[in-house]
Amino acid sequence: MIYFDNSATTKPHEDVLNSYLEVSRQFYGNPSSAHKLGLDAEKLLRRSYQQASQLLSVNPEEIIFTSGGTEGNNSAIKGIAHAYQNRGKHLITTVIEHPSVLDTFKSLEYFGFEVSYLPVDQSGILSIETLKSALREDTILVSVMHVNHELGTIQPIDEIGSLLKNRKETFFHVDHVQGFGKIKLDFKKNHIDLATISGHKIHGLNGTGLMYVRDGVRLAPLLHGGGQQNNRRSGTEDLAGCVSLVRAMRMYIEQNRHQPNHFAELNHYLRKKLAQIPEVKINTPENQADHIINLSIPGLMAEVVMRALEERQIYLSTQSACSSKQGQESAVLQAIHLPRHLRKSALRVSFSYQNTLDEIDLFIRVLKKIIDELKKDMR
Amino acid sequence: MIYFDNSATTKPHEDVLNSYLEVSRQFYGNPSSAHKLGLDAEKLLRRSYQQASQLLSVNPEEIIFTSGGTEGNNSAIKGIAHAYQNRGKHLITTVIEHPSVLDTFKSLEYFGFEVSYLPVDQSGILSIETLKSALREDTILVSVMHVNHELGTIQPIDEIGSLLKNRKETFFHVDHVQGFGKIKLDFKKNHIDLATISGHKIHGLNGTGLMYVRDGVRLAPLLHGGGQQNNRRSGTEDLAGCVSLVRAMRMYIEQNRHQPNHFAELNHYLRKKLAQIPEVKINTPENQADHIINLSIPGLMAEVVMRALEERQIYLSTQSACSSKQGQESAVLQAIHLPRHLRKSALRVSFSYQNTLDEIDLFIRVLKKIIDELKKDMR
Repeated sequence: MIYFDNSATTKPHEDVLNSYLEVSRQFYGNPSSAHKLGLDAEKLLRRSYQQASQLLSVNPEEIIFTSGGTEGNNSAIKGIAHAYQNRGKHLITTVIEHPSVLDTFKSLEYFGFEVSYLPVDQSGILSIETLKSALREDTILVSVMHVNHELGTIQPIDEIGSLLKNRKETFFHVDHVQGFGKIKLDFKKNHIDLATISGHKIHGLNGTGLMYVRDGVRLAPLLHGGGQQNNRRSGTEDLAGCVSLVRAMRMYIEQNRHQPNHFAELNHYLRKKLAQIPEVKINTPENQADHIINLSIPGLMAEVVMRALEERQIYLSTQSACSSKQGQESAVLQAIHLPRHLRKSALRVSFSYQNTLDEIDLFIRVLKKIIDELKKDMR
Repeated sequence: MIYFDNSATTKPHEDVLNSYLEVSRQFYGNPSSAHKLGLDAEKLLRRSYQQASQLLSVNPEEIIFTSGGTEGNNSAIKGIAHAYQNRGKHLITTVIEHPSVLDTFKSLEYFGFEVSYLPVDQSGILSIETLKSALREDTILVSVMHVNHELGTIQPIDEIGSLLKNRKETFFHVDHVQGFGKIKLDFKKNHIDLATISGHKIHGLNGTGLMYVRDGVRLAPLLHGGGQQNNRRSGTEDLAGCVSLVRAMRMYIEQNRHQPNHFAELNHYLRKKLAQIPEVKINTPENQADHIINLSIPGLMAEVVMRALEERQIYLSTQSACSSKQGQESAVLQAIHLPRHLRKSALRVSFSYQNTLDEIDLFIRVLKKIIDELKKDMR
């Protein structure tokens, strides 16, 4: 089996599962309980904050554990909007964000917020000029993703950070879900105020994730209750999930340290091989994130190719999982004005560190065969 | 070791952990992915809805999986408030609810909602007359817990349901977190519109839970995004968590079927034994939930007794875990006007089906010894 749909979700790593198991068995006390079982759990929880913050070069108090990327994006965006609305009610994002960002902004319009959804260029990248002209005196939040989930394009986070660093009234949120572990992003150097990370995109577990919230940034909490996590995210902490997330994060980072060129090698090899198939057009511009390649085979419906690949146990997707069931066309590919015939035939290959060059070889062989067969059928 | 703090959290059952592991390993596809791995995951997810709904005698479409009790209570209360505010902005709850309910209501005051926090009587029970006189034309939600987390008192859910069933404009939410598995609650017969269940209180996993939302009830979603769970709770489903939750729910129910009198036996035995210790006063009225007994040892600070017990590896709590760290006095015990000396010395014993009569014997022996020692120290 070849799994090239790692941007939808990844297979949990055995070491991550083992961490989860071990903690569930041995540290099941409620971290809020005052007795020893609770204190032991709390100690381990503190260590998780410590370790997560070290991996991200931030302070432990700047970490909030969440139930995943969707909660992180909702918390960050709604949290800033409601906490700072007295300062202004204008918010900025891009048209190519993940649904958990876009839909959250839409929900805020109902509360009287005005949202600017900025376009991107044909490469799928936000221009800093576009952002500059959208900024207003009452803009309290700019939310721009790091790596696009369908195209793999990298947004100019450093430029945006530099632009916003002197605007103390405007917060900067980055959806780092697709970027974490693949492309280093220094939250501090890039003047990022809030960032979102998800566990299940990095061989961690579903239902795990974290937010970075810079010291001094207030958040109106999404979840009210027992006051856990410094009153910013109530609910008994999923300690085993927290430990497992830190483990998954560390493994991804260490993997990159061991094989710093692995994703680039996969990317270049796949691009080289795809270039030899005349029917294939690559939609992802060069020099973007190495782990996502969007391609089209004009004339062949994406769904049909996906099914044919899946019969040979090769798994990839036609678009992001969070939109694929709704039968809608990809908003991202529309946003870059990809012609209809390319959109209809678009496929996304997304790698994890577990993928290999051999898998690409096999994928290419099978893909060529499928293209030939399908073309024959069409004659 | 004796663990009598099951209302704070429970030890995950090995069978529950095994379900979690098995699903994490074998069904790691994203249920929203269109390929076979996704469809297999989705099939299993559907089965979880089916099974959860059967266990609760409701329809599969009436189940929403959540990240736990806090999310469930937040979603239910905020979801109704924001969806139906055009109908009215008056909400009703009681002063003895869990912080995840109370604090959620407080957060809604900020959005212009008016909340009536109803008092309870000296037994910790809401009188139906009190509720009747609080209801107004613009009341859109009544939220009353099933079993109180500190006292174990059972609220008159059936009477409240009967009272509200003809008020189509008023929804009825029940925090069923402490009640599930211990005291049967028929959502349909009791005219309940929304209910919250948590995994980690029933030997399930932290970070798992579900909501019941009656057919036809609209919810403004707490989490926006990919539109999972019929657009009512976005975010990639934690499939392994869902399966494990259903497993934990079934095990609790089956356990009760096998030993229908187990909790009653534990309760009566503990009460009998406590009655033989003159220093002890039981705060929980008779004929309430069998799995929670609140008691005081006037003159001995609860914290001191708890520490002494913990040295003998017996774990219980001074109050609910979600409030215990904040050093606040128990709001529940204040609400029933328990005298200060009893509040200061209050301890909560909370059982799971794994506890035994032998454990109670040992607990009582140790407790007597501790009382003697501490009293000696005080002389």
